[in-house]
Formats: sequence, structure tokens, C-alpha cells
Amino acid sequence: MQNRELLKAYNVSDVNAEATDQEQKLAAAPYVKDKRGGETITLTTDFDGIAGSMDLYGLLKNRVSRRKYSSEALTLRELSFLLWATQGIRKVVGKNNFATFRNVPSAGSRHAFETYLFVSHVDGLDKGIYHYLPMEHALEVWDGRQDFEEELTHALCGQRFAASAPVTFVWSAVPYRMEWRYGLKAHKYILLDAGHVCENLYLACEAVGCGTCAIGAYDQDALDELLGFAPGPSAETDYECAVYAAGVGKAVTEE
Amino acid sequence: MQNRELLKAYNVSDVNAEATDQEQKLAAAPYVKDKRGGETITLTTDFDGIAGSMDLYGLLKNRVSRRKYSSEALTLRELSFLLWATQGIRKVVGKNNFATFRNVPSAGSRHAFETYLFVSHVDGLDKGIYHYLPMEHALEVWDGRQDFEEELTHALCGQRFAASAPVTFVWSAVPYRMEWRYGLKAHKYILLDAGHVCENLYLACEAVGCGTCAIGAYDQDALDELLGFAPGPSAETDYECAVYAAGVGKAVTEE
Repeated sequence: MQNRELLKAYNVSDVNAEATDQEQKLAAAPYVKDKRGGETITLTTDFDGIAGSMDLYGLLKNRVSRRKYSSEALTLRELSFLLWATQGIRKVVGKNNFATFRNVPSAGSRHAFETYLFVSHVDGLDKGIYHYLPMEHALEVWDGRQDFEEELTHALCGQRFAASAPVTFVWSAVPYRMEWRYGLKAHKYILLDAGHVCENLYLACEAVGCGTCAIGAYDQDALDELLGFAPGPSAETDYECAVYAAGVGKAVTEE
Repeated sequence: MQNRELLKAYNVSDVNAEATDQEQKLAAAPYVKDKRGGETITLTTDFDGIAGSMDLYGLLKNRVSRRKYSSEALTLRELSFLLWATQGIRKVVGKNNFATFRNVPSAGSRHAFETYLFVSHVDGLDKGIYHYLPMEHALEVWDGRQDFEEELTHALCGQRFAASAPVTFVWSAVPYRMEWRYGLKAHKYILLDAGHVCENLYLACEAVGCGTCAIGAYDQDALDELLGFAPGPSAETDYECAVYAAGVGKAVTEE
């Protein structure tokens, strides 16, 4: 099957076949997307005690994909922790500050993701679509529209549990951040990295009494359009497309 | 860039374009690979207290990619925990037992991975190459050869820190397990899943005083050959290839 090739690494004899943009000394892509200029909401980084008393063994043992959420709102502090755990930035590093260290590992510290939230039920946040600003650890209003549930349900292939969740995470990739360094292998690394991110969301949710379920089945064009991304493939360095999503809410006791 | 298409989901209009093997009622691939018949080593599942007293917030904050390891051996119990956290099976589920629930999430519970260990320094294990048996939570001797370091270093593109680590994890994918259900989107999901697995390894290592560093750059043919996989792409349902790797050892105090 031709697509099996996607799973593979280079062979050593091929590694130097093509000079990457980094090797050609081209400028790296910005490590975060520009702000859109919407209203911003500062998030806390005071997480002492938030993760409860359960050790990692307990968290791993309890983790399941949770598609049912209680009627309780998430607190802004809980949401803040989930964002910090999945994409929070520790520092900016490297020659010309070309990379970020975050709370999740990434191939070559390229961190090709942006995080968008469809917020329905979070204390202190109006319903709407938000964009995470990892440098400021803040949210900006991405789109104030509140009537997204039907379109989001369609974009998530009918998975209403996620579209109607208190919060729906959508991660986009800006592929050039990774392509600059890794060329044709960038896309494998982006997907491995998206898995790192989502597993942190799973475990961080378990730690704060929430639950999540990852969503791989979505309509690419519909979700990209809902987030205002330019359609179709593109050679542009700022090209962006959704890659993974997850519904999040307070866990209900029975499964 | 053509490979950007790898990042994408179907669009809804395409989803039904092609019947998957599952939809065609073909038999699912076995959810684990057959044993090779080597000597087996039973692993413990007594993990009470193993994860220490640090909460998830602390683990996430401390996690870094660790490429230096102390001269101390891993204990078999620590290694057992790392295997349980990354691929341990909870139960077998579904019609005709076609899926497994594990301690890590996977798209459609397909869990397309096998785990191989290059063991150099684990108390109670001879140096050699091992294969994890998730149903039994045991290891089998995959290849008793002890002189793998040079070949493994070559296969990991010269990254000797990983090849000489107390343990080197290599995850292979058996793509048909995922293709059976998801057809052409299988390969995106396999890579997302491999990211889930590796992030659990990172956090489980932090919890038991170990460290790890993921390896995406390896020589596909060399690593596949070292593990005895059949070369090249194949339409076979038992086709298997390496997808991700990680060196593991006891953490040193300074970074």
C-alpha cells in the first residue's frame, strides 16, 4: 500500500540527498502565529495542587476516552492547565531564537502547532472561538460567534459529543515550521508530535477531573473553513491546516 | 508541498468513496504478533508506589529529552512499568475479539504497534534484543545477540547515546491492523498513536527516575533489517516496519 511509505524514515543514503531550508540558511518560520488582535484573556500559571493526589500510575490506569461530560463548567484555571500541559512555552532558544522549549516534546523543538478552542461552558469565558497565545499564556478571541455547534458537528463528521462539549480543542499545524528543518520527513514528525500533545491532554484531563476523547475523523475543508484558514494546499510558509481535535469536559462518575 | 496532504483528514464527501476491509467484512488482522518462541521473562504488574510522589504538574514541568544516563542499571520492575504504560493491554474487546484496550489511546483501538527492546543494562536481563508480549505482559528473547551496538548506532543515524543506552525502545507498526478499519487514513492515525505511546514513555520515565529521548531520525532499512523484518513495502497483512524509537536510562542529576 503506497501510503505505508508515510510511516518511514529516510535511509541513511537518502538523508543528504536534499538540502533543507535550514541547511540553505533560509530564515526559520516564526515559532508562533501572529496575534489576530482580538480581546485577550490572561491565564494563570498557578497550578500548585491542581493535579490532585493521584500518581502517574493511577492516572494511566484510569485514563479512558471520555465522550460524556457533566453539566458542570470547566474553570478557567483547569483550562489554563490543559493549555499549559499541551503547548505551554518554557523558553525561546537557539540562534536567532528560532525554537521554543515547551511542556511537550517536539522533533527538533519545531512545535508546528497552534491551538484553537471552541468554548461552550467555561467559567469566565463567553461562548466563542479562541486562539491560544503560548508566549503570553493567554487566549485571544478568534471569532466571537456563538452559534458554531451545528457547523462544528458537521466538521467533526457528526460527532456531536465533541462539538457540544464544554470545550473542543482543535490543533492546527503550520507545516513550514517543521519543513524548514526536516524537508519531506516533516509531516511524519508533525503527526508524532500531535500525538505527544494529545496524550498530555488525556493525562492532564484525568488529573483535574476532566475527560477527553481525541478526534481523528473530521472534514478537513469544513474545519479549516470554520477556523478561517485559507483553503487547499499551498507552498506558503504560513499555510495552516487542522490536524487533530478533542472534546473536553468535566468527567461524569459512571462511564 | 505534496506531503502536506499526509496531515489531512478526509473531507466528508470522500469518506464513503472507498469501502474499508472492515466494511467489506474481511477478517481483522491479529491484534498482536505471534510469539517467536524464544525464552520468555514474566514481568510484574505490581506498580504500587513506583511512580513516586510527584504529581502530573511536576512531571510535566520536569520532563525534558534526556540523552545522558547514569551508569546504574534499570530494574526489571521499572522496565515493566515503562512497557505497561506504553503498550500494556487491559482487555480484549469487540465482535470476534478484534480489538484491545490498552493503557494508551489508539484510533479505533487498533493499536498497530509491536515493541522491541535493545537491552544493554537491566538487572535480571541478559544483554540482547527482546520483544514485548502485551497479552502475557512478558518479554521474549527476540535475538540473543549481544554485539548490536555498532549496527544499532548506524541504524539510528549515528545517535550513539540511544544505541548505548541501558534500553533502547523501538516501536514497529503492523499497518494492516489500522488499514483494515481506516484504509488510506490509517497511516496518519498510526503516527498520531505512536506519539501517544512515546509521550507515555516520557512521563513514565520521569516518574521512575529515568529519562528518555525520542528518535525520529533512523535508517529505515537498517533498523528493519536489524529486527529481522522483511524488506521493502508489501501488500501483506503481516507487513511490519519500525516507526519510532527512544533511548532510556536512569537519569543523571545534572542535565
